[in-house]
Amino acid sequence: MDIDQYMIEVGSAARRASRVVAASSTKDRNTALLAVRDALDGARAALAEANAIDLEQGRESGLAVPVLDRLELTPARIDAMVEGLSQVAALPDPVRSIADMRTMPSGIRVGRMRVPLGVIGIIYESRPNVTVEAASLCLKSGNAAILRGGSESIASNTAIARCLKQGLQAVDLPHTAVQVVATTDRAAVARLIAMPEYVDVIIPRGGKGLIERISSDARVPVIKHLDGVCHVYIDEHADLGMAISIASNAKTQRYGTCNTMETLLVAEPAAKEVLPELARIYADAGVELRGCARTLALLPDIVLATEEDWGEEYLAPILSIRVLDGLEQAIEHINTYGSMHTDSIVTRDYAHAMRFLQDVDSSSVMVNASTRLADGFEYGLGAEIGISTDKLHARGPVGLEGLTSQKFVVLGDGQLRS
Amino acid sequence: MDIDQYMIEVGSAARRASRVVAASSTKDRNTALLAVRDALDGARAALAEANAIDLEQGRESGLAVPVLDRLELTPARIDAMVEGLSQVAALPDPVRSIADMRTMPSGIRVGRMRVPLGVIGIIYESRPNVTVEAASLCLKSGNAAILRGGSESIASNTAIARCLKQGLQAVDLPHTAVQVVATTDRAAVARLIAMPEYVDVIIPRGGKGLIERISSDARVPVIKHLDGVCHVYIDEHADLGMAISIASNAKTQRYGTCNTMETLLVAEPAAKEVLPELARIYADAGVELRGCARTLALLPDIVLATEEDWGEEYLAPILSIRVLDGLEQAIEHINTYGSMHTDSIVTRDYAHAMRFLQDVDSSSVMVNASTRLADGFEYGLGAEIGISTDKLHARGPVGLEGLTSQKFVVLGDGQLRS
Repeated sequence: MDIDQYMIEVGSAARRASRVVAASSTKDRNTALLAVRDALDGARAALAEANAIDLEQGRESGLAVPVLDRLELTPARIDAMVEGLSQVAALPDPVRSIADMRTMPSGIRVGRMRVPLGVIGIIYESRPNVTVEAASLCLKSGNAAILRGGSESIASNTAIARCLKQGLQAVDLPHTAVQVVATTDRAAVARLIAMPEYVDVIIPRGGKGLIERISSDARVPVIKHLDGVCHVYIDEHADLGMAISIASNAKTQRYGTCNTMETLLVAEPAAKEVLPELARIYADAGVELRGCARTLALLPDIVLATEEDWGEEYLAPILSIRVLDGLEQAIEHINTYGSMHTDSIVTRDYAHAMRFLQDVDSSSVMVNASTRLADGFEYGLGAEIGISTDKLHARGPVGLEGLTSQKFVVLGDGQLRS
Repeated sequence: MDIDQYMIEVGSAARRASRVVAASSTKDRNTALLAVRDALDGARAALAEANAIDLEQGRESGLAVPVLDRLELTPARIDAMVEGLSQVAALPDPVRSIADMRTMPSGIRVGRMRVPLGVIGIIYESRPNVTVEAASLCLKSGNAAILRGGSESIASNTAIARCLKQGLQAVDLPHTAVQVVATTDRAAVARLIAMPEYVDVIIPRGGKGLIERISSDARVPVIKHLDGVCHVYIDEHADLGMAISIASNAKTQRYGTCNTMETLLVAEPAAKEVLPELARIYADAGVELRGCARTLALLPDIVLATEEDWGEEYLAPILSIRVLDGLEQAIEHINTYGSMHTDSIVTRDYAHAMRFLQDVDSSSVMVNASTRLADGFEYGLGAEIGISTDKLHARGPVGLEGLTSQKFVVLGDGQLRS
């Protein structure tokens, strides 16, 4: 197979299909989503069989247990895929809404119409359920998609691709509106991220290494999130009970998620009130603590944090703790070491809350809430294809709107430029 | 001078300054703009002197007359620069407004706060007035800026840079909030577009060659517009008088602008009604016509257009004309040969107008209006730093809002993730 030639065919077919999908009705796209759902529901045996091939191959080649876990299409995961398609079909259609229509001095009326981006390339790890999720969000928002999952999931993805094709054909949408790259050759990724003539945006999902490599090599705009070094700052004016429950929830509710707190910042006056109790809670949960010198003065048994700790995304039951003079230093710390993902202040002080919201340069800034709430569903977006820590286009959780942009529409009755 | 070292210093100073500017008050930024205005107003003699050096050097090195014209800081241009600063200071501040604040089922309130992008790099040709315009829009929107003008304008830009510095220091904003690159070495541009750690977005302004080179080499997101191949489509249901006045204005009101019509599309039934009269108007204005075979059947004296003509941005008194069956072919033609800039339909038919608005994939789509109206001022944006033909972030005229993005703000009272 000539990879270059193959990817050009995939790309140009996606470009052609994107025009048809963009022009299609809300009803047709929803019907297609439900047809894909039915196809998946009716192909459970085939999906399980294909997935078993991937799993066996994965075990033989010695994949780690968490990787095998993510690769597995359990009946519950297939249920979730099927249910997810119904949910996405039920969401409001973001496409073709017109906002801010206003009349200008010349008499023209000017507004902004929301339109699909065109062709979206998604590169992700060996998680076949992501194939369905990404396909459904792209299709719902009127885009064509090129999906490239990890090579370990090729058999599962090929089986899913058949269901996608069936669904699209059921409503006469081109089956090339959602394409699953049919090769595990890495050259396909290199080509996919360098075809601006066919691909409008790349969304990489996965480990930091993968995302950094793709961002640096891409010739196409990238919507990405590199890492989530999230902070909770307990202000000296915090409600101490609330501070303890938020700092506990933000760390221990789940360890491997990008919106989990990785560093706890505490204003000196609050430190002796909250740290001993938090240390007990974290000890019970099995969280390893690493603190600055001032933290160690209160919690002498924990490890001294190094400079590296402040920039680390542990994704594990490890937490770094720093005691600071107050708000100024907290903002400075977050803007220096954070990853512009999600940061929260716990305070009862109005001015401190406003300063934090304004000056912390992150995609989500919170007052008195757990960082774990930074999520497309919790934010009411209805869906989430990822969380962007970029500054252009989409910041924070990216839902259907993030897969669209706005063009200007001008309604005139003969206006000229004078 | 070690260019790499110099650009790292410029970049890191801009990054530090961007935090201060982003946190500064609307009043401080407006006061700085007015102080820059006063500094420019008081430095007319020095500006004229510096500009004379550039002009002399330019003449000696044989610059073309239009280039010399753009390089010149006439008293009228200095007036416009001074006046422009007052106008920008008077615009509403886009920064820190909060939109769409809604309460979610968990009880958190979620909204979006408009925030500066950070550090904006602007690369442009030898037009010293752009230095002031770009500086003012970046500063107004709370961003730090690194400005790199064409090498032929270095003396003028250095004189302007002194005024910028004076104005910024008058309100205790860091003078590094707007920096003019002090070297004409091209290596500085290569470095500027490859420092994602210091620069958040690059806006190139100038010829297509420059912009293509920058886009392909940049390691930083780029807001750009490559070219303006704009169309007017005269539908068979057009008001013929309106069609003639729009097609005439869109071409002849100005030739060198990106929103000037370059190709006129006419539905067959309307062609014989409008083309002969339009041909007379264009002949009077000295516009050269190049037509398809069906056009030549009506206007036998004009040149036959080649395939290249359909994709050409003439920026000159040349127009290509194509007669088509109707709307479908017009949309197909525009989406194939256009540059996704600005396209207009002239029609009295409601369904045709809606189809055109929906299916033409351009940053501005118009009904019954001249393409020349695609402009930040005509659209009520108050200012314009350029027109984007990209799909991500900003499409169409880019005003102050285009130099900002939105982060999520979450107001809670102790909410946790369950």
